[in-house]
Amino acid sequence: MDDMRDRGLTLNPKYDRDGLITAVVTDDASGDVLMVAHMNAQALQLTIDTGLAHFWSRSRQALWKKGETSGHMLQVRDLRIDCDQDAVWVKAVPAGPTCHTGARSCFFRRVGAEGLSSVDAAG
Amino acid sequence: MDDMRDRGLTLNPKYDRDGLITAVVTDDASGDVLMVAHMNAQALQLTIDTGLAHFWSRSRQALWKKGETSGHMLQVRDLRIDCDQDAVWVKAVPAGPTCHTGARSCFFRRVGAEGLSSVDAAG
Repeated sequence: MDDMRDRGLTLNPKYDRDGLITAVVTDDASGDVLMVAHMNAQALQLTIDTGLAHFWSRSRQALWKKGETSGHMLQVRDLRIDCDQDAVWVKAVPAGPTCHTGARSCFFRRVGAEGLSSVDAAG
Repeated sequence: MDDMRDRGLTLNPKYDRDGLITAVVTDDASGDVLMVAHMNAQALQLTIDTGLAHFWSRSRQALWKKGETSGHMLQVRDLRIDCDQDAVWVKAVPAGPTCHTGARSCFFRRVGAEGLSSVDAAG
């Protein structure tokens, strides 16, 4: 365990072999988890500098300013990093549905013993 | 995009090349993000079956029942999966501090333009 990284006050993200950390976005108002994505160093820096959530799209292999095409940007209210600095928590105000399906949150299905059930369908 | 996986009601996790999905745990009472970890198929199944959060420890390369040694288990109140089924959201009641540093949440440091600052120190 890296004690400086785990407890110190120096930003030192532990990027994985693809140069990414995990980013969890919650709704600043409801506390709901809206999405999980990834950031590279550039996306993290742009998020800090602009106050708008930026990610690295693994499918498109490109920098991804959330909402650039949909208009559904994520305005950052708080940005936290976890103990081993391989994940950030973005508390944000969403400008619209966060999920590409049209749902408010990407987590619109509940996992139960009998499979999935809808919780918050696209609306 | 896999429409069945994205919108259907069949559990079909998209495990990465290491056989893992991302797991985000929030505090059922406060909504705070407590930790981010990973699950393999066995950990996900045990979480569903037992109602206690299980993960796959990448550092130890072993199944990890959260709280097995510390007693700080995470009792699952709700389990959700995201659109592309590569991440789950666990809403849980924590039996104690979730972070190995003793902090309530692993996300006890804020990221700002001037580096990190403590938000919720171990207590």
